[in-house]
Formats: sequence, C-alpha cells, structure tokens
Amino acid sequence: MENDKRDERSHAIADTLPPVPLTLEGAAVLHQMFRVRWPAWKTLAAAERQAAVAEATTVLTAMEQDGSGQTALFSLLGHKGDLLILHFRRSFDDLNAAEMRLAATRLADFLEPTASYLSVVELGLYEATVRLYTALRARGLQPDTAEWVHAVEAELARQRQAMAGRLWPQIPPRRYLCFYPMDKKRGEMKNWYQVPITERQTMMSAHGLIGRRYAGQVTQIISGSIGFDDWEWGVDLFADDPLVFKKLVYEMRFDEASAVYGLFGTFYVGLRFAAADLGIWLGGRVPAFPPTASG
Amino acid sequence: MENDKRDERSHAIADTLPPVPLTLEGAAVLHQMFRVRWPAWKTLAAAERQAAVAEATTVLTAMEQDGSGQTALFSLLGHKGDLLILHFRRSFDDLNAAEMRLAATRLADFLEPTASYLSVVELGLYEATVRLYTALRARGLQPDTAEWVHAVEAELARQRQAMAGRLWPQIPPRRYLCFYPMDKKRGEMKNWYQVPITERQTMMSAHGLIGRRYAGQVTQIISGSIGFDDWEWGVDLFADDPLVFKKLVYEMRFDEASAVYGLFGTFYVGLRFAAADLGIWLGGRVPAFPPTASG
Amino acid sequence: MENDKRDERSHAIADTLPPVPLTLEGAAVLHQMFRVRWPAWKTLAAAERQAAVAEATTVLTAMEQDGSGQTALFSLLGHKGDLLILHFRRSFDDLNAAEMRLAATRLADFLEPTASYLSVVELGLYEATVRLYTALRARGLQPDTAEWVHAVEAELARQRQAMAGRLWPQIPPRRYLCFYPMDKKRGEMKNWYQVPITERQTMMSAHGLIGRRYAGQVTQIISGSIGFDDWEWGVDLFADDPLVFKKLVYEMRFDEASAVYGLFGTFYVGLRFAAADLGIWLGGRVPAFPPTASG
Amino acid sequence: MENDKRDERSHAIADTLPPVPLTLEGAAVLHQMFRVRWPAWKTLAAAERQAAVAEATTVLTAMEQDGSGQTALFSLLGHKGDLLILHFRRSFDDLNAAEMRLAATRLADFLEPTASYLSVVELGLYEATVRLYTALRARGLQPDTAEWVHAVEAELARQRQAMAGRLWPQIPPRRYLCFYPMDKKRGEMKNWYQVPITERQTMMSAHGLIGRRYAGQVTQIISGSIGFDDWEWGVDLFADDPLVFKKLVYEMRFDEASAVYGLFGTFYVGLRFAAADLGIWLGGRVPAFPPTASG
Amino acid sequence: MENDKRDERSHAIADTLPPVPLTLEGAAVLHQMFRVRWPAWKTLAAAERQAAVAEATTVLTAMEQDGSGQTALFSLLGHKGDLLILHFRRSFDDLNAAEMRLAATRLADFLEPTASYLSVVELGLYEATVRLYTALRARGLQPDTAEWVHAVEAELARQRQAMAGRLWPQIPPRRYLCFYPMDKKRGEMKNWYQVPITERQTMMSAHGLIGRRYAGQVTQIISGSIGFDDWEWGVDLFADDPLVFKKLVYEMRFDEASAVYGLFGTFYVGLRFAAADLGIWLGGRVPAFPPTASG
Repeated sequence: MENDKRDERSHAIADTLPPVPLTLEGAAVLHQMFRVRWPAWKTLAAAERQAAVAEATTVLTAMEQDGSGQTALFSLLGHKGDLLILHFRRSFDDLNAAEMRLAATRLADFLEPTASYLSVVELGLYEATVRLYTALRARGLQPDTAEWVHAVEAELARQRQAMAGRLWPQIPPRRYLCFYPMDKKRGEMKNWYQVPITERQTMMSAHGLIGRRYAGQVTQIISGSIGFDDWEWGVDLFADDPLVFKKLVYEMRFDEASAVYGLFGTFYVGLRFAAADLGIWLGGRVPAFPPTASG
Repeated sequence: MENDKRDERSHAIADTLPPVPLTLEGAAVLHQMFRVRWPAWKTLAAAERQAAVAEATTVLTAMEQDGSGQTALFSLLGHKGDLLILHFRRSFDDLNAAEMRLAATRLADFLEPTASYLSVVELGLYEATVRLYTALRARGLQPDTAEWVHAVEAELARQRQAMAGRLWPQIPPRRYLCFYPMDKKRGEMKNWYQVPITERQTMMSAHGLIGRRYAGQVTQIISGSIGFDDWEWGVDLFADDPLVFKKLVYEMRFDEASAVYGLFGTFYVGLRFAAADLGIWLGGRVPAFPPTASG
Repeated sequence: MENDKRDERSHAIADTLPPVPLTLEGAAVLHQMFRVRWPAWKTLAAAERQAAVAEATTVLTAMEQDGSGQTALFSLLGHKGDLLILHFRRSFDDLNAAEMRLAATRLADFLEPTASYLSVVELGLYEATVRLYTALRARGLQPDTAEWVHAVEAELARQRQAMAGRLWPQIPPRRYLCFYPMDKKRGEMKNWYQVPITERQTMMSAHGLIGRRYAGQVTQIISGSIGFDDWEWGVDLFADDPLVFKKLVYEMRFDEASAVYGLFGTFYVGLRFAAADLGIWLGGRVPAFPPTASG
Repeated sequence: MENDKRDERSHAIADTLPPVPLTLEGAAVLHQMFRVRWPAWKTLAAAERQAAVAEATTVLTAMEQDGSGQTALFSLLGHKGDLLILHFRRSFDDLNAAEMRLAATRLADFLEPTASYLSVVELGLYEATVRLYTALRARGLQPDTAEWVHAVEAELARQRQAMAGRLWPQIPPRRYLCFYPMDKKRGEMKNWYQVPITERQTMMSAHGLIGRRYAGQVTQIISGSIGFDDWEWGVDLFADDPLVFKKLVYEMRFDEASAVYGLFGTFYVGLRFAAADLGIWLGGRVPAFPPTASG
Repeated sequence: MENDKRDERSHAIADTLPPVPLTLEGAAVLHQMFRVRWPAWKTLAAAERQAAVAEATTVLTAMEQDGSGQTALFSLLGHKGDLLILHFRRSFDDLNAAEMRLAATRLADFLEPTASYLSVVELGLYEATVRLYTALRARGLQPDTAEWVHAVEAELARQRQAMAGRLWPQIPPRRYLCFYPMDKKRGEMKNWYQVPITERQTMMSAHGLIGRRYAGQVTQIISGSIGFDDWEWGVDLFADDPLVFKKLVYEMRFDEASAVYGLFGTFYVGLRFAAADLGIWLGGRVPAFPPTASG
C-alpha cells in the first residue's frame, strides 16, 4: 500500500516535469567537405604546386593544435568529397576565422566545397534533469520560480565543471571517422517531442548502454545543431577499425530511441592523416596515421 | 450553473469564429545568400579589386541606412554561402531595385547566388482576433457584413498604429544572425489549418511565452511569405551570443505549436559586419561588430 | 416526409454520378524562368550589347501582341531567376516556336533557364457538371451512352462559347505576378480523387467564394497541367499590390479544399515591364509599368 | 445455395493464387533528354555546323529505321530539355551501342544530357494470369510444381506469339509525345503489392477501359523498369492532339488504380520531327510532322 | 497438451531473444560512377589520348586482379553515368588507395564523378541467430554474459570459416550488372526494426526462397552500408540476361519483406567489359564480354 501510494505520487510528479532536458554546450564545431579539382591541380606548374602545398601545410599544421582549438584532416571515401576538415574551436567567430583563413590559401582555389556542418559539442543530461526536476517538484517548487532557476543553474555549473574534458575535447587520434547528422522524428503518431521526459530518459539510457559496450573501440562526440544547421544533432564516431561503425550503428538501430525516432542524414567516412602529410596526399597517396617517419 | 451556461455559450461562440487570424504587414524583406568566387576574385589585379571594393562599399554603405529601408551584411558559416545580405525596404519594387543595383556592381561578378528568401514583416494577431471576433459574435454579428468588416478595419488600424515600430523595424545591431523558414504542418491527421482558432491562439500564446523569457538576449523578427516564397514564414533571430539560438529553438521545439505543427527549412547562421568593413572581409578577415577603429 | 424521400433519392443519385468534372481548355501557356549571366553580359562590348538589346526588344515586342497570343516580361525577386517570360498561345506548336525563336536571339546566350511550366488555361465546371449529371441520372440515363455523351457535348459547347473570353484571356496588365503550381493530395487517408464529386463541388464552391471577394484586387488564371508538367495545376495571380497575394493565399489556406487537399510548389513573384523597356532593365533598372514616357 | 457454395469455393481459390502477375517483355527502350548548348552551337563556324548537322542527320536517319529497332526525335517544351531521343531496340547492348554512337558525333558535344529512362516494353497479363491460376488451382495444382510451370510457360508462349506486334512495336508516327514514369504506392496502409491479385486485376481492368475509350486518339506504350531504372514503369502516350494527354491522364486519376496507388514522376511533352529535318530544327524552327516537302 | 505447453514455452522464449541478427562482414566494396567528358576527350590530341588510354589500361588491368582484391568496369546505360567501376578490396584503406590511384591518371581528368557507394560484403545470419539465441535462452542464459558472448563468438567463427568464399567473393564474370541501394522502412506503423526477430527471420527466409529459384541465372552480392553510406544495404545482381533483373526484382516486390518494408534507391544497369578493352570503349564501341580476340 505504502509503495503503491509512493508510486502513484512519483507518477503524478513525473507528469508535471518540464519537457526540456538540460544540456551543456562546449566546443564550436565545423565540418567542411571538399572535392579536389584534380584536373586543374595537376596542370599547375610543379613549383606553384609545391608553394601551395607548403602554404597549406603551414596553415593547417598550425590549426591542428592552436590556442583556440584543433583541426584534423580526413581522406574521404566516395564521391561526396575527397577531403574533410574538422574544426573544434572556442567560438563561432574562431570557426569563421578558420574558414576564411583556409579560403585565402592558394590550395583553396582547388577545393570545391561540397558540404559542411555547424554545431557545438553537446552533453545531454536526461538523467540528471529527471533526477533534479523530480526532487524540485517533490519539494513543491514550480518551474521558472527563482528557487527552481537557482537550483538548475547550480546543477549546470556542477556538471559543467565535472564534464569540462568532454565539453572541450581533443579530436580523438584514431584512423577512421564516421560523421552523420540526425533528427528525432516528429511524425503524426510518433513524435519524440511529445513523449514524456521520463520515457525519453529511459530510451536514452538504453541507447547509452549500447554505446558503452563499444567504449574501448569507438569514441563518440555528439554535437547539437538545433538553430545552427539543418538537422538537430551531428554524430562523430572515431575508431581504429571502421567495421565498428557498422556494428554500433546497426545495433543501435534496433533500440527504441533510434528504431522509432531516429532519422539519419548523409554519412561520411574518412581516413585521418596529419596536416604535415598533406603533400603526400595531394600527390595521390593516403598517408599512414599516426604518421610514420616515411609518411 | 450560471458559469456552466456562460461556458457553454462561449464555447458555442468559439465554434463559429472565422478561422483566419488577422495579421499586420510591414517592411518588405529579402535575404540574399552568396558564395564568393574566391579563385577568380584572387586572380583579379589589385587595382581592380580595390576599385570593386570601393564601389561595393559605397553602394552597400548607402543601403545600410537609406530612405526606403536598411541593409545588413553577415559572414556566413559553412558551405551554404559566404555572404548573406539582408534588406528591409518599403516595397517589393525597392527590394528589386536593390537587387538590380547590387547585380550591377563589379563585385557581383564574384558573387554566386546560392539562396534567397522573400517575405514581409508580419505581426500575427491571434489574441486580438479571438477577442474581437468573440465580441462581434456575442453581439450577434455575421462575418463579412458591413458592420463586421468595419470593426475589423478599425481594430487593424488601431493595431497598425500601436505597432508601427515593430512593423517597420530597424535591423537589430547584434553580432549574430540565425535565419530559417518554416511551415505549419498540414498532415493527414495533424493539420494546423483545421485546428479551431481558439486552440491555435492558446498554442501561439504558450509559444510566445517562451520567446518572452529570452527577450533580453534575442530579438526575433517574423516575416510572412505565403504567396511570396516556398515556406509560410521566415524567422530571423538576432543575438550577441549564438548559443541563445540553440537554447531558444530547442526549448520551443517542445511546445505543441512547434513539436506537432512546426516544419523547418534550411538554417543560416552569420556574423554581422559593417558595409564599411567589406574590404577587410574580402581580404580574408571577419571584422568586429560593432566596428572598431581598427576594423 | 416528402422532403426526406426527395433527399434520399437525390442522395442516391449523387452516389452514382461519374467522378470526373467537366473542364474547358483554352490558351496554351508556358512560363519560362531565366537567370541573367550578368558577368558575361557586362563584359560584352557596348555595341554588341546594344545590338542584342535591339534584337531581343524587336522579337519580344512582336510577341507581346502577336496573332497567335501574347507574351509578358517580369523582373523576378530572389535567386530563383531574374526574368520570367510568360507566353499565352493558340497551341503547343506556337509555344515551342516562341521558345525556339527566343533561343535563337543573341540575348538568349546570356539567359540561363532555371525553370519552366507548361499548361493550358482551364475552367473547371464542377457546378455545371453536378447539375447536368444529376439531371441526366434523374432521367435514368447511363454514363457513356450516346444520349449522355450528346448532352455533355452540348453543355460543353454552350459553356465554351459563354466563356471564350476567359479561355483565351489577355495577360492582365497589372504590375505584380505571383505564379505557383499545385496538386490535390492523394494521401492514404485524405485523397481528393476519392471524395464524391458533390463534396468536391461544395469545397470548390467555398474556395471560389474567397476568390470572389478579392475580385477587384486580383485577376486569377488557372491552367491545367495534368499530362503536361509535374504538378496538376498552375496558378497565376495578377495584382497592383503584392500584399494581396499573401492575403488571398493565406485566407484560402484555411478553406477545406486547400487546408486538407492543397499541395503547393515553388512560388515566383515578379514585376511586369514592357518589352520595349528591356534595355532599361538590362541596364540595371526596373522600368515602371504601365511604361511611362521616361521608362 | 449452389451459387453461394461455388462463390465460396472460388473465393477460397482466389485467396490462394500467387500474387505476381505474368508479364511479357519486348523491345528495349531508352529515352534520352538533352539540352542544347545553344551559345556554343551558335559560335561554331557555319561550315563546322553544317558538317555536324550532316553527320548527325546521317546517323539518326539510319537509326530511325535500322535492323535492330527504331529511333525518333522530339522537340521538348520547357526547360527540362530541348531534345528527346527515343530508342526502341532488340537488346540493352543495342541501346548502349546507340548511345555510344550518338556520343561520338560532333553534335553530341553540344548536347547536355539532362535525363534518361531505361525500360523494356511490357504487357501485363492480369486477366490471363487470374484465369490461368484459378484454373490450375481448381485442378488442385500447386505453384512451382512442374505441371504448374509447364502450363504457365505454355500460356506465356501463346500470348507472346499473339502479341508480338505490341511487344516489338513501331514508334507510332504521331506529332505529340507525353512521357512519364510511375510507381504503385507502397504506403503503410495502402500498398498495391499487398492487395490480392484478383482485386488488382479488377482495378487494372477498370483502368484499361478508360484507355480503350481513347483508343483512336492516343497510342499508349507501357514499358517496365523495375530493376532497370528509378520508377517501376514508363508510360509513353502518342497523339495528334496534345489535349488528349490531359483528358486521358485526368480521367484516369479518378480510377482506383491511379487515385489510390499511382505515383507519378516528371512529365515530358514533345513534338516529333524527322531526323532528316534536324538541320531545320537546329536552325531554330520546329519542322512539321509528318515532314512536308519544304520541311 | 504437451505440444501446447512446448509451444507456449518456445513463444515465451522467442519474445526474449535479442533483436539484432548476427552478421558476417567480408570485402570492402566501392562503386564509382562517372560521366565521361566526351567533348574534352575528343579534342585531346590523338597521341595524348593514346597515352591516357595506355596508362589507364595498365592501372585498371592491374586492379582487375590485384593482391588486395578486384576491379571491374561496366558501360552504364542512360544519363546517370557512362562508366561504373566496381572495387572489391581487403580494407577501406585499399579502397581509398584505389580511388586516389585512379584520380591520379590522365584519364581521370575526363571522368566526372556522378555517384558512388561504400559498403562491405555482408552475410545476414537470421536463421543461425534465431537458432542459437533460442538454444541459449532455453539453457537459461542471459545476453551479454560471458557464456552467451562466448557461444556467439564461436558461432561467428564457425560461420566465417564456412562462408569465406562468399565473404571474399570474386566479381562474378557475367555480362550485366544491376546495382541499387535499399533500406528497411521505419514508418509510424510499419517498422522493420520493431518487428520481433523470429518474424523477421520468417520474412527473410521467404525472401531468400525467391532468390534461390533464380540461382543459376543471377549471382547476388549483398553488402551492408549502415554507418558507411546513405542507405542500409547495397544490392549487386550479375546476370547473362538483363531481363532476369526485372523478373527477380518484380517477383520479390510482392514478398512481405520487400512489399511492406523495402525502400529502394537509384538503379544502375551496366555492361561489363575488360580493362584491356578500355581503349575500344573510349573509342565509342562497347566491347564484348568475355573479351574476344577482336575486342
């Protein structure tokens, strides 16, 4: 009886939780995809080509580890692009500056933009949100009151500090990248944004468990792009074996959060190489990664 | 008992209100997105480049504050375009004249149009409409009668005067712009245009409350494009911190008006800079905004 | 009792009416949208430019009012095109000849086709159809019998004569054009083509009433394109104030025929100018319309 | 009673018929759509242009009636292409050879491919299939047994002989062509491929009746493209009056097979002209068809 | 009674099976589609053309059978591309190296990439999975326990060895190729990823039976692309008669797995030719296959 009543009460509370989960935002992220204008590049005089390689190598090597973030290069598979340049920065201003700096290089005259994606590293806090909101409601607080807002701010500050490393991550130094954007479905019957927050939390938690089983094999960075780009989130997977991308994404497709609500955009798969090896790559060979003495 | 009867009667009235909310229209708006033909621009002789910058700077500086409206420049993030030029004008004729004037500049030869959006600043008057229509119906008036039309015209005139500033706004002088077009869903089961006007008013009012909480951080300008462009509305958000775009749009996505009925097009995010700084921007650097002495 | 029986009988008849409404077809219509290759145009020698303007002005002025129809020019807003050329002709052969004639001009080398739409002016006869079919059924006739077909042909002939002016219309001499194509939805639950003809007639009639209230402000020409182009109908609205496009299309969006069944394609908005003023327009200024002495 | 039992039994049999209707396949079909690069073509020296016309005329005239099939030329309306070349051949190898032969001409350097469609002439045998399968089931035979397969092969052989003319047709010598691809819907509720074969047969039969009423005015050739191109079927209509395309397609849109299950792709409308008149057409005039002495 | 109980128990077990079927992965696969820039190719000096042919023939002949896989060339029908190059390799690194090697040839300057597809040969093990999982559950084991994982690994190892030939296949030496990508539907009502694994197994098994009847006429290679490209699977069919593609795909469209859940992308159909015959093909003739003495 006691339990039933408590259950009822906690259900009653669950029904009154605000629907929006708390999130933390970190690094500003830009994916740039380019096709190389090979015919034009090949007709360039050798000296000009060398100069262009030298300039771009200098610029990109400096970006790989600069004060305001990092940059990484990937050799793309297929016709969607030849080169993916991934930027993590402190701000959108820094991203725009990186874009402009690249566009100013001689090499950029031989790079045709085919796609891009703008987002910020995001940590979704479904679990913490439900825990906090439930506690606040149990104390009889109303959303948007000073006390409520204060408690939320305190929680966010606590989480932000605890997760600083994940909010401002290094680009994982693995060979393979898989990037794709995604949405949560808002269908006429199945609508993620109309599901109670506690049910969404349960689904996200099950979803996370799958990811955790691949923890050693893949590093996942989620970035949010609502208000920034055409999908709601970007997903970057980094691994030493690309088969892991298939295994992970396939397994996840069966969990409810993805099976019912996940909508997926274009997939990009690339091989990392060091900016210092740009000349090798432009010469038609994919350099090893991490770079070896002989490139 | 009394209350019940009054409720019944007001329900009965609600069921007979015309479905179309009143709107006010103000400035004619054109968004122009361009990609810079950097390779061609860079091969232009320095003197020609300077002349092109000088001419375009003169033209755009004059447009920034001209008699018939304003123009603002934004450096876009990502491959959807490099430059967004936003025009507010008195009429479509003035917008078309601005387009033609720009196309006639030498700089335009290096700008490739990638997108555009045509609309007029719109103020939706759901609340006033329901209040007025309910009152008119309570007086036993029929829509489209002379008396009804007269009352509507009077209300519109009153509102138009009270809201002149919002109908003919200044382009807010903030650093960041987020623009996207949107529709209201007309699905087989969920159809905004079949929802009773009183329910739509309730949803729009809840939607507006979220916006109001971000009032200090973001300036929102809604423009209507039914009959003008491929989506029903355009949304421009202006802020000093781009994270606010994400927070606001994400929170709104959970309110019923957006979660169930909102359909969203392409998102554009840009950084404002002054027309006087166009030369700096074309040189590969994103100028500060508001402009500083050193650009 | 009497009424009930009559109602039942008329219902029973309504259920047996053939589903296809009668239509009348008139002028063959082609919309051509072009983007001007401004950079190339501007580099053309002044004399060549003058010659190209002179030739195109001669060709288009002749088309504006030629024996087999009319042609009108519009300066488009936005990036979907700069110039819309609208042709009304006696036949598809005449339309194709006009296209070919235009393509042969020197100016055409600087016009890049971005879109087009092929249709014929159509008058839908829902009301007359239901009236006639009901009468024929009441007389016990069967569709496709000689008597039925004869009665239909007679009705069509009568209507064709009465509506000759609307079937072979002048292009209305108004400043603004709004063009868009549309379909009727064939969803899994809401399917226009499965709705009984009497219900479709009721919806079309309510739809028409809205149009009639805008009669003085807007001239509407509907053209059918089933079997000719990718949507089922094209809609051309002509007005002296472009805000009327928004008011009309928005109001119609709430009527059942549009709210539930209307699907809309790309919208084009343009400003009319006279072929004689083509040189002014190509010089970067939008001429007034109707043309003034000073262009 | 007797009848009821027979009905029940025939229903029971109907429920056990295999779902796939028999089809016959004939000529391999390729539609090629091209846009003419008019500016480049016009700058070609007159002598080169004459040589290119002479070569292409020779090649295409030979193709119009060659041993392995036929080819026909159409002047397209609108921006989707200027020229449609339709090939009927004995095999895909012959089609590919025709493509390659055309690409090798000088004229091909001025033709930009905008679209194409690959299919084979198909005769659907719904009626014969249901009759045969019902008879075989009534005899107690099981699908895929030797006896069943033998009976099917015999039926196909019989039909193939009887319909040889329709399987390997001449391109009908009419002035106007309408081509469009189509699918049968596989929605979540309305799914053609889940409808019992007897119901599909009834719908196809009603659909065919409409076509038959237009028999004298239009020649229809259906080709199958499942496994070959992006839609399931291609439809070619040939007529002397293009209004017939609109009448026929509109009327069919109300029959259940189309209203509920038909999905339609891009429509192409063109005017036939003889390969011998290619020079006239490239000169900017649409030749008559059938060709007259003076072109 | 006994049977019923066993049935109930096996049903109960079926309900607790993990949803993800086991798969085996083999060769890395890349489809590259190109359009030939014929006009530019034809203007190349004969000697340069010969040199380009010689170089590309050497590179591609070596790839046809190299240590890390195979490559095959196909002459495509229609405008989606002229040439399809299919690569089977040991790894994504080898695929990327092949791409880069090709891009470095002189011929590549005349090949415009129009599409591509990245995947790995996949064998779905629905039957073995259900058998194994059912046995493990019957023994009371829980998924993700050490014992469970061990049994799964053992099964995979067994299957991998037994199926090595199908995981690392030769490109079947047949004349015709049909390639298309596909998804399994995740609709609001019909969602493949929410169907119990035993039901999916039943559907896949019925689907496989159709394929088996075509065994002698067509060789099918399925590759998985979840996490790699924009659809979930790629399907390659190889046959000596292209009509078999139509027959097979049409028949399959009626089985439940395809009718209800199959979504299909773009179809490509091509004719195989030997790399040694590249010069013949570039000269405008489609070589025979297998190659004959005279090409």
